[in-house]
Amino acid sequence: MSIKINHLKGFLQVLERAKAVASDKNDDIKSGVLIQAKGTSLSIRGMDENISLEIQSNELTEATKETSFLVPASFFQELMKNLPKGDVKLVKKESKNEVNIVVGKSQFNIATMNGEDYPVVDVLQEGNSFKIDGTLFSEGLSAVKHATSENETRPILTGVHIVSNGQYLTLIATDSHRLAAKAVPLLQEATELKNTVLPKKSIDELIQILSNVKECEMIIHENRMTIKTDNLTFTTRLLEGSYPDITKLIPNDFECQSKVNREELIRACDRAKISLKPDKKKVAKFHFKNSELPALDLIFTTSISSGKEELFLADLEGEITINLDVVYLKDSLQSLTTRDVLIQFAGVMKPVLIKPVSEDAAQFALVLPVR
Amino acid sequence: MSIKINHLKGFLQVLERAKAVASDKNDDIKSGVLIQAKGTSLSIRGMDENISLEIQSNELTEATKETSFLVPASFFQELMKNLPKGDVKLVKKESKNEVNIVVGKSQFNIATMNGEDYPVVDVLQEGNSFKIDGTLFSEGLSAVKHATSENETRPILTGVHIVSNGQYLTLIATDSHRLAAKAVPLLQEATELKNTVLPKKSIDELIQILSNVKECEMIIHENRMTIKTDNLTFTTRLLEGSYPDITKLIPNDFECQSKVNREELIRACDRAKISLKPDKKKVAKFHFKNSELPALDLIFTTSISSGKEELFLADLEGEITINLDVVYLKDSLQSLTTRDVLIQFAGVMKPVLIKPVSEDAAQFALVLPVR
Repeated sequence: MSIKINHLKGFLQVLERAKAVASDKNDDIKSGVLIQAKGTSLSIRGMDENISLEIQSNELTEATKETSFLVPASFFQELMKNLPKGDVKLVKKESKNEVNIVVGKSQFNIATMNGEDYPVVDVLQEGNSFKIDGTLFSEGLSAVKHATSENETRPILTGVHIVSNGQYLTLIATDSHRLAAKAVPLLQEATELKNTVLPKKSIDELIQILSNVKECEMIIHENRMTIKTDNLTFTTRLLEGSYPDITKLIPNDFECQSKVNREELIRACDRAKISLKPDKKKVAKFHFKNSELPALDLIFTTSISSGKEELFLADLEGEITINLDVVYLKDSLQSLTTRDVLIQFAGVMKPVLIKPVSEDAAQFALVLPVR
Repeated sequence: MSIKINHLKGFLQVLERAKAVASDKNDDIKSGVLIQAKGTSLSIRGMDENISLEIQSNELTEATKETSFLVPASFFQELMKNLPKGDVKLVKKESKNEVNIVVGKSQFNIATMNGEDYPVVDVLQEGNSFKIDGTLFSEGLSAVKHATSENETRPILTGVHIVSNGQYLTLIATDSHRLAAKAVPLLQEATELKNTVLPKKSIDELIQILSNVKECEMIIHENRMTIKTDNLTFTTRLLEGSYPDITKLIPNDFECQSKVNREELIRACDRAKISLKPDKKKVAKFHFKNSELPALDLIFTTSISSGKEELFLADLEGEITINLDVVYLKDSLQSLTTRDVLIQFAGVMKPVLIKPVSEDAAQFALVLPVR
């Protein structure tokens, strides 16, 4: 049995995604990728304890017979990526637990794992179901991901919360110091959705595999979610527990607000971060001052340095002096995309609201001040 | 007192080099860079326990008065590299132990260190002296550096040995598993030189600062060396101890030799390295076989994989099967520059000699086989 690879680059792309999902525990059968080929159709599967991904493709390969084998994901992928130039064939002899990668006169052999032990995944067919633009969903996850918690003490906060009113999916992430939210329109009306929390590795994978997908179907049932596109099926366990209600956090009355050039403020945060390094601090004082020429003074002090940056503001209402984490602020600004952002202050100890300045601003960020 | 910076990019390049030399011990006065300016002339100095570097330049800056200050090297350099756009001025008030970096309305202040405590360096004026092309010397160091030892058990092997017959400087490095040597012509005849061993950090720095220098003077006296160019003075302590005599290591009689395409063999070593990963091994079997079509078989085996690569050889005398470290072989091949290399074997347990195939081959490498 042998598989001729007609499009190595395409094959490697599929393999790369399956490998990313595969378990990194070497002694686990889930550290393998399962390759199945018949005629010109190919399926590559990867999985770990929580996620399973199957990608199907056509025309990338051509198999002489129905061929199936399970090989260590990382090792197989690294070898395949670095082959000498030439036509590539994967050869599997029935009598041997080995796959041979043959390129010209060179040959690389890998012991196969026992494919019969590779778990079958219960892909969801029924449940709460949504249709959505994959690219927009991927972009939404990218935009909020930075605000997820890295700290496992509250595991629920390491994920992204997905809620829906039936017309939008809203993606929410917070580590309780800052928050990011973005709404993505559904392709058709659906039922409401609550308490669906995607775990970290699934977020990373979905950002990759959906980035160029026009339409995908999401099916949610109990603590699992399946996402299907034309050629892939992704199933993930969801995080258990109640995601905190964030609606109370969002301030309504503001004592100060300003439009700011996003890139300029990002650069200033970068410099403040460098300036604060000697003391390993990250907090600077932000003074929005409404003098003749409205300006933002960014003030930072360490044991061996101090400094002040002045940014011109075109549009400022009210005044405030507030302490903010420059890294959190920068992350929030970077997840937005408009030239200008609107920053709104409800008080020196209230969350700061940051929104894009645009018509369809279905996105916002919160940063909590520091005492 | 203030220094106006007219060419920020040039200033940053000089600062970068002085910072690289400065000590990384934060509490040491040698972790600073000393900036001295008068009119349009500027000097920046950096040093640690073993090395001192002074770079002079003209026209990069313009000082109102004679100005001098010592600031933390890394912090100052990182700040300077990330300033907002605009004209940059360094301001030093006599009454304050502080330098202000002023750009438009923004200002960054750094506490200065006590410049009077900054050590004066005894730059060598007399000793065994050589004139050499800086670029060639820098290239020579780059070519042999990979073979220096990373292991401090024999400190002398962490350096590069410089010897001279009066017409060439020969640079030698070995960690006792592999060896690299390259000869660099002197610009004028000189006396012989022995037992001059450059320490690791000096090697790295000289590669950088001499890479574009036409002519430089080297002065060696006892355990120190000074290198002077038009605008910089570099002084380093030399490693103490006797460098081993390598002449006995170089084989003369060969039972097998072959011309090999350098790039092809590098790629094959790369793949062998990946193939050997599962067992964290680095040794493959090399079989130079003189059949109808002379070829090199590269054979590798781990607990879960095996493989064979075949490279076509245009020109093979004799036959040999030998075990080599693929990383050492690859490093040696990468330090050479010709399309083809000549590999010579004196026996399965004798050092393998690798030379460029070119007229002026003032370079070679040795790799010891593995049992």
